[in-house]
Amino acid sequence: MRISPRHPRYRSLLVRARLADAARRGLVVPEGLIAQGRAEAFDYLLGERSSPAAARAERAAAAWLLAARRPVLSVNGNVAALAAPAVARLARILPGLGVEVNLFHRTPARARAVARALRSAGVREVLGVRPTARIRGLPSDRALVDARGIAAADVCLVPLEDGDRALALRRAGKRVISIDLNPLSRTSVTADLPIVDELSRALDAISAELGRLRRAGRRPTLRRFPAARARAEALATIARRLRRRARPRSR
Amino acid sequence: MRISPRHPRYRSLLVRARLADAARRGLVVPEGLIAQGRAEAFDYLLGERSSPAAARAERAAAAWLLAARRPVLSVNGNVAALAAPAVARLARILPGLGVEVNLFHRTPARARAVARALRSAGVREVLGVRPTARIRGLPSDRALVDARGIAAADVCLVPLEDGDRALALRRAGKRVISIDLNPLSRTSVTADLPIVDELSRALDAISAELGRLRRAGRRPTLRRFPAARARAEALATIARRLRRRARPRSR
Repeated sequence: MRISPRHPRYRSLLVRARLADAARRGLVVPEGLIAQGRAEAFDYLLGERSSPAAARAERAAAAWLLAARRPVLSVNGNVAALAAPAVARLARILPGLGVEVNLFHRTPARARAVARALRSAGVREVLGVRPTARIRGLPSDRALVDARGIAAADVCLVPLEDGDRALALRRAGKRVISIDLNPLSRTSVTADLPIVDELSRALDAISAELGRLRRAGRRPTLRRFPAARARAEALATIARRLRRRARPRSR
Repeated sequence: MRISPRHPRYRSLLVRARLADAARRGLVVPEGLIAQGRAEAFDYLLGERSSPAAARAERAAAAWLLAARRPVLSVNGNVAALAAPAVARLARILPGLGVEVNLFHRTPARARAVARALRSAGVREVLGVRPTARIRGLPSDRALVDARGIAAADVCLVPLEDGDRALALRRAGKRVISIDLNPLSRTSVTADLPIVDELSRALDAISAELGRLRRAGRRPTLRRFPAARARAEALATIARRLRRRARPRSR
C-alpha cells in the first residue's frame, strides 16, 4: 500500500505498515500487532514525544547500564521489527551489553528471524537463539534464556515486555528497566526503572546519554530510581493533554 | 494458548486470542490487529464500561436507526471477528437494517469470509460481497459498496471505520453513526453521531434500546446529536480516571 506523506498520520502509518509487513514475514506474531496498537494509542495520548519525565528515566537508564556488571537487552519480534538499528547503535556504544533474543511466542524459526534482523542491523553477537538456562516462576517455554545473557545479568533492559516475565526477572534479583508506553501496564508497574516512551526514541536517548557519560569519563552507580513518581508523571501528562482537548471549541 | 481465568486481564486476553486466531485464518488483516490494540488501550482508559455519555449516544443511535428510511450497518473483518453475534441480534430486532461487508483491505476471499462469519451468527442477508456501486472521493478499491446497501442508505452505522471513508460517506449526504473507542480519531471527529464505546457493548446497547422503542410503539425522528459534546465528555472521563491513578500512593 502506498501512503501519502500528506496524510495527517503519515509517520504512524509507516510504522504500522512496517509492522504489518513483519507480521506477514513471521517476525512479529498477531499478539505483537495488538500490542503495537496499544502502544500507538498511548504514544498518541502522550503527544508522540518524550516527556521530561521520560527523558529523566532514559538518563537514569543509561547510568544503570553503564554501572552494571552485566547489562543485557532483551529483544522480541516487535523490538526487532521496530528498532533493530537503534538496538545496534546501543550495542555499539556499550560494548559490554548483551543482546538476547527473548520471545513470548518462541519457535526456533522466529528466534532465528529476530537474530537475523539484529545482525543485518549491525549487532555483532546475538544471544538466546539456542537458550541454555531458565528463569524460575514462568511457564516452561517462556522461561528460556541464555546462560551468558539474561541468566547472568544484573541489569535487564526489557522493551515491550510481558508483565509476568518482568516480575520473574525482578524476583530473580535483577534490576529491571522497562520501555513501555503504558504507565499502568504490569510491566511498567513492576519495573525498577520504568521508561514510559516510544521504543526508538527511548533507545536513542539512552545511547545519546551513554555517549555523554563515557565522554565525560563518568562511572555512575546504581542509584534507586523514583519509579512510582515517574509513572504518575506520565499519567499526569496524558490527563493534562486530554483536558486541553476536551474543552469544546467555539463554533 | 491456554489463558488462566485468574489472570488480571482475562477478558481482554480472551478477545485478543480470538482476534489473533481470526488473523491466522485471514478474516482479520494485520492492520486490523493494530487497530484492535489501539481500541483496547482506550477501553482500558475508559474503565472498560459504557460511560453515561456513551449510553446516551447509543440511545440516540437506536432512534436514528429506527427513524431511517434505509439504515445500513457496515461490517469489516474486525467487526465480524469481534461481534458477529451482536450484529445478528441487531439485524433481528431491526429487520429493515442492511448488513454490508465493507473491507478496507478487500479481497474476494476476505469478503466471503466476513459474510460466512455473519451468516453462521444468524444474519440472513449479507450485502456487499460482490460490490455494485461506488462512493465518490475514495481510492478505487475502497469506494466499493452495494447499490442496495450503503449506496442507498440515509443512515450508516460504521463500527471501527477508517476516517477517510467516514468522511466520504458524510460528504455523500449520509448520516454517519460511528463506534470507535478513540474520541480523537478522525472517524469520531467526522461522525454525526460518534459512539465512544466498545463494539459489542455498543451494539447490544443499541439493540436493547431498539427493543424498548419498538415495544413502546415509538416512531422517533432524526434529531441533531451533540457530537462535539459527546467526544469532550469521553475525553473528560479518561482524564478524570487518569488523574485519580496519578495520585502517588503512600508507601
